[in-house]
Amino acid sequence: MLGWTIVDWQTAYRDGATPAALLATLLNGLAGDDAAWITLIDQPYLAAQLQALEARRLANPDLATLPLYGVPFAAKDNIDVAGIRTTAACPEFAYIAEQHATVVQRLLDAGAIVIGKTNLDQFATGLVGIRSPYGAVPNSFDPEYVSGGSSSGSASVVARGLVPFSLGTDTAGSGRVPAGLNNIVGLKPTVGSLSGRGVVPACRTLDCVSIFATTVADAELVFTQAAGFDAADAYSRTRPEHVLTKLPAKPRFGIPAQPEFYGDTIAAAAYAQALEAVRASGAVCIPLDFSLFDQVTTLLYDGPWVAERYAAIEAFAEEHSDAIHPVVRDIIFRAREFSATDTFNAQYKLADLKRAADKIMASVDALLVPTAATHYKIAEVAADPVRRNSHMGKYTNFVNLLNWCALAVPANLRSDGLPFGLTLIGPAWSDHALAAFGKHWQALTGLPRGATGQPYMPPAATTDKHEVPAGHLRVAVVGAHLTGMPLNRELTERKAILVESAQTADSYRLYTLAGTTPPKPGLARSKDGAAITVELWDIPLPAFGSFVAGVPAPLGIGTLELSDGRLVKGFICEPYALESAQDITSFGGWRAYCNRAA
Amino acid sequence: MLGWTIVDWQTAYRDGATPAALLATLLNGLAGDDAAWITLIDQPYLAAQLQALEARRLANPDLATLPLYGVPFAAKDNIDVAGIRTTAACPEFAYIAEQHATVVQRLLDAGAIVIGKTNLDQFATGLVGIRSPYGAVPNSFDPEYVSGGSSSGSASVVARGLVPFSLGTDTAGSGRVPAGLNNIVGLKPTVGSLSGRGVVPACRTLDCVSIFATTVADAELVFTQAAGFDAADAYSRTRPEHVLTKLPAKPRFGIPAQPEFYGDTIAAAAYAQALEAVRASGAVCIPLDFSLFDQVTTLLYDGPWVAERYAAIEAFAEEHSDAIHPVVRDIIFRAREFSATDTFNAQYKLADLKRAADKIMASVDALLVPTAATHYKIAEVAADPVRRNSHMGKYTNFVNLLNWCALAVPANLRSDGLPFGLTLIGPAWSDHALAAFGKHWQALTGLPRGATGQPYMPPAATTDKHEVPAGHLRVAVVGAHLTGMPLNRELTERKAILVESAQTADSYRLYTLAGTTPPKPGLARSKDGAAITVELWDIPLPAFGSFVAGVPAPLGIGTLELSDGRLVKGFICEPYALESAQDITSFGGWRAYCNRAA
Repeated sequence: MLGWTIVDWQTAYRDGATPAALLATLLNGLAGDDAAWITLIDQPYLAAQLQALEARRLANPDLATLPLYGVPFAAKDNIDVAGIRTTAACPEFAYIAEQHATVVQRLLDAGAIVIGKTNLDQFATGLVGIRSPYGAVPNSFDPEYVSGGSSSGSASVVARGLVPFSLGTDTAGSGRVPAGLNNIVGLKPTVGSLSGRGVVPACRTLDCVSIFATTVADAELVFTQAAGFDAADAYSRTRPEHVLTKLPAKPRFGIPAQPEFYGDTIAAAAYAQALEAVRASGAVCIPLDFSLFDQVTTLLYDGPWVAERYAAIEAFAEEHSDAIHPVVRDIIFRAREFSATDTFNAQYKLADLKRAADKIMASVDALLVPTAATHYKIAEVAADPVRRNSHMGKYTNFVNLLNWCALAVPANLRSDGLPFGLTLIGPAWSDHALAAFGKHWQALTGLPRGATGQPYMPPAATTDKHEVPAGHLRVAVVGAHLTGMPLNRELTERKAILVESAQTADSYRLYTLAGTTPPKPGLARSKDGAAITVELWDIPLPAFGSFVAGVPAPLGIGTLELSDGRLVKGFICEPYALESAQDITSFGGWRAYCNRAA
Repeated sequence: MLGWTIVDWQTAYRDGATPAALLATLLNGLAGDDAAWITLIDQPYLAAQLQALEARRLANPDLATLPLYGVPFAAKDNIDVAGIRTTAACPEFAYIAEQHATVVQRLLDAGAIVIGKTNLDQFATGLVGIRSPYGAVPNSFDPEYVSGGSSSGSASVVARGLVPFSLGTDTAGSGRVPAGLNNIVGLKPTVGSLSGRGVVPACRTLDCVSIFATTVADAELVFTQAAGFDAADAYSRTRPEHVLTKLPAKPRFGIPAQPEFYGDTIAAAAYAQALEAVRASGAVCIPLDFSLFDQVTTLLYDGPWVAERYAAIEAFAEEHSDAIHPVVRDIIFRAREFSATDTFNAQYKLADLKRAADKIMASVDALLVPTAATHYKIAEVAADPVRRNSHMGKYTNFVNLLNWCALAVPANLRSDGLPFGLTLIGPAWSDHALAAFGKHWQALTGLPRGATGQPYMPPAATTDKHEVPAGHLRVAVVGAHLTGMPLNRELTERKAILVESAQTADSYRLYTLAGTTPPKPGLARSKDGAAITVELWDIPLPAFGSFVAGVPAPLGIGTLELSDGRLVKGFICEPYALESAQDITSFGGWRAYCNRAA
């Protein structure tokens, strides 16, 4: 089971294995003295979960309704698991959780089994993984190096293949930096997409529950199961009806014009190599001035948001300040320096910066940055704990403040053998679009998964041309809307996506319509017909109404049959217009007719 | 010109009057010693505006493109008008504005002429209209009573008919309370719908520019011209594509179960009488527990938002605290009591309250409250300036914090002759829906406009059947989608609105299609045709895509011509299906065919 993906677990169960057998063995094999864990569940706790799972299975005999059936996972120890201590890496702060956090409950409802709670930078304050009385979590590739944090344990147990996925949290990079430093995937979802109920807050207005896995597909599956509006969390948000699910085939990535590695030439070389591979994959990298994002980061580091960390534990902090890790304490107590006026002024400044930042984001399909600018040894961070910590967040800190989402993916191994990661950053609710590129990218890297040494197996190729992405409608265009033709912009302006060139069933006739500008054909079903070349485009549903509204007589939108029997929406024509029209069926399509020898 | 509405001004210009003649006379007639004005423009300033207006008219000879052509207005003196002092009712704070505020510029672009700047509670801090070194603004019905504030002058000049509309601002009721106390309309738009650039902030996260007029129709016209995204204001927002434009014909209003009038039995009686009239108009009034809204108000009064007022004038306040009105100073300097932690805690609390408040709002179509709970004399407020001020805001304070919009409308005259107003409160972007009810309501009240004594004239009924409401698409249905037919629910489920029964041009033939379930007709244009009965439905654009997607072959959505020459979207049919179809044109429509004698 070591190093299994979610897909591997699913396969094992389909092949007859039982959660009871596999998970008892898994739990027995986990070492309690592993700095990545703060709490492992015991066998009775496992048995109770297995019993509940069995009840779920009986109620839902089709395992497809329990997509995480019997899949073990770990939760960062600032996320409540009912009946288990939540420590936030501060034993004096700890309490026994009465209820599961909403995200944990959602995963259990999908069939998953929680195995343990993981170490973290105390109160999720840090990006290094050494600010914990439970010990520094060593990097999974080289124990002299930091794991990254604050979700250090959750990243470590996934990188080492102990569990296929885990939950972290991310306020300024805690769900991305440790992914990058351990060669795994870190999904920092859109703020509010996963409920924060039952999570010890760091900065409530910025916090996200995050997901670690060794493949983007696994992380996305967990995201889909964990996400959802939660009325009990005032910062939970409803996903808009129509969200971007793909980047363009040749995405345009904004990259830092002057990347900063704090003197780490090995990281610089790894980044250059990664960008080369990104470009080779067909993407375009556009150097942008990132100084605006640095201003956002400065606002976070030097501004009043630290008061959110203080607000989260105010009563405890005042009574037990000695119980707090000294580095963390110094940071959190800076809250007292800031007034209400400072806070509003900083929020105004952020609103202004966000306006400008969104403009930058709109100029590209996503940002593409190093996940971490450099990688320190544990001793190096201990020697200079605040400054070196801030270096780790160079490319993560600004994201949550700007209401963006991000996906950290493995990129390559540095020349010193440590992992190097890239992070995609997109606007709110582009999580799935980033994941779509991430899956494509992960198949290209050829990297093993995490520190397991096990190869990445691309998911079985699905013929997804037949799947219309959510929120879209597939339309067959026949004439002036084809790629390169005069009305094609009516599709591209609506962000429609070209799926493929296809053929109608061999029962259509094509006519050239008299008096149309630009010239247009009319398609008509006929017993005595032929296959006509069309293009299939997926149009976002909200834009479809205005598209149809703009189609002039004698054309309209009806239903066409394709050569493989699929029915799609497409252009039809009123009969009166065909009466005197010239039959051009023999050309097989409008493009061929337009390109005919004059 | 005294007491003219915008419509009256438009009529005068259509009848040959010129802005130069009318506005010079208007300006000459305005008294400089009127406490409602802080600054009146001079004749050269008017001349410059008239010259610019003339240039606009030459560029846009169709006056319909300048909907506020030559219409004079006033702006509250915390809104910049280029070249004029902005005082915010604090002479020591005053500066000459270099640019027009965005809203002012938009109104000038629409043809309006700014006439002067109006008095206010200093720094827009107050709801009474007496906290100003420029004097207390007397109520337009009885000078012993307060005008209400903070937009006291802007309400007064409209109520007395000096200008047909004016701009105020509203953070906690400043755009509504003075409307209610002066028998005029106060539109407090959705936060971010009107730009705040060039406005002295009160609480930047809550401020709205507001609109006063004597008719809802006038206020809505000004709103339409003034609203729009402004990239220069970080709190400006894009109006969603699809917004509610109407309340249901019999709206369900949430009203306070235990209305509070602070002992004012005359106000209580006026409110009871107003509710009776509301119910008589067909609306349903549902008593709700308003204690949650009181909690929001408490958060505003006792919480850190006061620091926004301080932040807005910090440098000035520190250096010139003596120049600030003592009541205002005491309020603003309370900012120093609040820390960053207090601020975040209050914002969390507000987020929780907003979640609960939105649930209440979702249970009704709008809230309906007294605009002001009571009406004090100037001397009464002076004697107890803070507590009595807070009484005025009982039904206004919570609205901006909850991201709602509101419309204050005249309701009746109290038994003591003072005006009594009602306020409609709706979710963000329901401005037009509230206005639609407000227009209907205003026609029922029979009240004169403002303090002018002039009657309210309902706008001439427009045959708006030809206007498709914003965000909708008009579709002619021919067969199974007609009212009462089996597929009609595909329209009603999508909240489509039946507009009218209509006829096609007399060039269509109707066929009954073989093998369709439920039975369906096909419509085809033909030289030798007839007029066919159709129904016109307005479908919300976001729902139109799925509607078209559900139309099966051989039908589709194309373009039909109506008997009056209009082109609308409608059902067309592929030719192959008509080849063997029975021609039923002689029935004149599908319903007549279905009802034929068997």
